[in-house]
Amino acid sequence: HADLKEMRRVNALKNLQVKCAHIEAKFYEEVHELERKYAAMYQPLFDKRSDIVKGSYEPADDECEWKADEEEELTVSKAIMEEKKDEEKEDPKGIPEFWLTVFKNVDLLSDMLQEHDEPILKHLQDIKVKFSDAGQPMSFTLEFFFEPNEFFTNTLLTKTYKMRSEPDESDPFSFDGPEIMGCTGCQIDWTKGKNVTLKTIKKKQKHKGRGTVRTVTKTVPNDSFFNFFAPPEVPENGELDEDSEAVLAADFEIGHFIRERIVPRAVLYFTGEAIEDDDDDYDEEGEEADDEVRFFFSFLIYIYIYICK
Amino acid sequence: HADLKEMRRVNALKNLQVKCAHIEAKFYEEVHELERKYAAMYQPLFDKRSDIVKGSYEPADDECEWKADEEEELTVSKAIMEEKKDEEKEDPKGIPEFWLTVFKNVDLLSDMLQEHDEPILKHLQDIKVKFSDAGQPMSFTLEFFFEPNEFFTNTLLTKTYKMRSEPDESDPFSFDGPEIMGCTGCQIDWTKGKNVTLKTIKKKQKHKGRGTVRTVTKTVPNDSFFNFFAPPEVPENGELDEDSEAVLAADFEIGHFIRERIVPRAVLYFTGEAIEDDDDDYDEEGEEADDEVRFFFSFLIYIYIYICK
Repeated sequence: HADLKEMRRVNALKNLQVKCAHIEAKFYEEVHELERKYAAMYQPLFDKRSDIVKGSYEPADDECEWKADEEEELTVSKAIMEEKKDEEKEDPKGIPEFWLTVFKNVDLLSDMLQEHDEPILKHLQDIKVKFSDAGQPMSFTLEFFFEPNEFFTNTLLTKTYKMRSEPDESDPFSFDGPEIMGCTGCQIDWTKGKNVTLKTIKKKQKHKGRGTVRTVTKTVPNDSFFNFFAPPEVPENGELDEDSEAVLAADFEIGHFIRERIVPRAVLYFTGEAIEDDDDDYDEEGEEADDEVRFFFSFLIYIYIYICK
Repeated sequence: HADLKEMRRVNALKNLQVKCAHIEAKFYEEVHELERKYAAMYQPLFDKRSDIVKGSYEPADDECEWKADEEEELTVSKAIMEEKKDEEKEDPKGIPEFWLTVFKNVDLLSDMLQEHDEPILKHLQDIKVKFSDAGQPMSFTLEFFFEPNEFFTNTLLTKTYKMRSEPDESDPFSFDGPEIMGCTGCQIDWTKGKNVTLKTIKKKQKHKGRGTVRTVTKTVPNDSFFNFFAPPEVPENGELDEDSEAVLAADFEIGHFIRERIVPRAVLYFTGEAIEDDDDDYDEEGEEADDEVRFFFSFLIYIYIYICK
C-alpha cells in the first residue's frame, strides 16, 4: 500500500532528524566553548568597569570623551540626577549605587527587590559570570561581589545554574539549544538581627483547657531579593509543588537574563539605554488591547445613547 | 561637581561597552565559522533525506522503525492521508510533494503561495543552505533544486543573503549579532507562456481625437512565490519606497526562517510536529483577544436587554 510505504520513508526522515538533533547538541557545546574563550577576552574590560564603579580607578580624559547626540547625553544626566537628588555627599568615589540602580531599572529584577534589600545592594560592587571548565558538565555561576558591610560577612554570594545540551530521549525534536536544568545558591552568613529573608511575627495562642492566652514569637520567611540564593530544592523524585515550580521558572529566567544581558551590558541598564527597546514590545501589545477596550466602550456608550433617545 | 565627575565615569563605561560590542562581533564571526563546520556534518544526513524524498534511495527496515507514541503516529498518518486523498497513483516514488507540503504547512511561506505556484513547486526536490567561505564577507545562499519541468529550464534557483556582523558606528549599542543587510535573487528562464510572475491584461483605450476604441494588451507583475527570486533592488542612495521596504523586511524574515528552521527540520514541518509549538504563542494571543471581544459583546447584549425591559 502506497501510504504505508510513504509512512516508512517519513519515519526514516524522522530518524535522520534525531541524528541532526544530536549533532546540534554538539554544536551548542562548541558554542559554549567559544563563550568561555570570549569571556576571557571581555574580562579585562569588565574588570576596568568594576574599578571605575568602585572608584579604585579614575578614568583619564580621553577615556571619557563621548560623542553622543544630545538626547542620549540627556538620558545619562537624567539617570544620574535622579539617582543623586537624595544625596548630599561631596564627590563620592566611583559610581555609587551602580548595581542597585541597574536592579531598579530592570523590571525582572526590581520585581524581586524589597525596600529592606536596597541598603544591602548598595554594597554590591560587581557581578561576574563564571563558566564551567572544558570537559565538565555545562554550567555557569553568577558571582555577586560585596564590599564589607554590616549585613553579612560574605564578600561573595554565588548562584550556579546547571545546563543540559542534549536532546531528551523521549522528545528529541523539542531540543533547541542548552537549557537550564537546575540551580544551587549559597549560604549567607547574616550578622545577628540583619537577616532580611526572615521575619518574626507574634501570634496569640489560647490554651484549650484553661482558656488562658499567651503570645508566641514565630520566625517565618520574608520576601527579599536574597531568597534568590536559596532556591527551592528539587526532591529526589523530581516532583515539585506548583509554587516551587513557578519560583524556579522565574528564577531560571532571571539567571539567564543576568548572564545574557545584565552582566555584558550593565552600563546600558544603568543609563536606561538598553531598557527602552526591551519594553517597546510590551507597550505596543498593551496599547493595542487598550484601543480595543476603548473602542468597545465608545460603542457601548453610542448604543446606550441611541437606545435612550 | 560630583554629578559631572560621575557622568565622566559613566562615559568611560560606555566607551568600554563599545569595545565589548566589537568583541561580540568577532564572537559572532566565530559562531558563523562553527556553523560552516557543522553544515558539513549535517550535509550527509540532508543528502540522504533528499535521496529518500526523491525516491532514489529506499530506506531499509531498520531505518524506518519509529518508536513513537500513538498520537504522533496519528499525526504522521493524518498528514500523509490528507496529502494523498486526491491522488490515485499506485506506489509513487519517494515522498511526492514533500517540499510543497512543507510550504503549505508554514504560514510564513503559504502566505506567498498562489494556486499557480503549486504545480511548479511539486518539482522542488531539495533546499540547501550554502555559507560563504571563510575570510569572505558573511553571507548565505538558499539553493532550490528542481527536477526537469515544463515551467523553466533552470534546475537550480538561488537566493543570496548578505550579512553584517559589526556594530553600527552611529549606534554601537544596538548591535545584537549578525543582521541580514541585503539579498539578491537569480534569473528564472521561463518556458514560453509559463511565467507565472507576469500576467497579461487587456485594456480599452479611447483615441482622443477620433473617439475610436482599441484594445491593448499589457504585461503586468503577478503575485507568485517566484517573485522571491526577484527582490526589490536597493538604489545607490540606499533609500527605498515604503512598499519595497515592507517586501524586503518580509523577505529577510522568510530567508532567515528557511535557513534556521525549514532546511534543518524539514520533516517536522512536513508532518506538522514543528508547527504546533511555533503557532502556540499566536493562538494564545488570538484567543485572549477573542475572549475580550466575546466578553464585551455579552456585556453589550446584557445592557441592551436591561435597557429594553
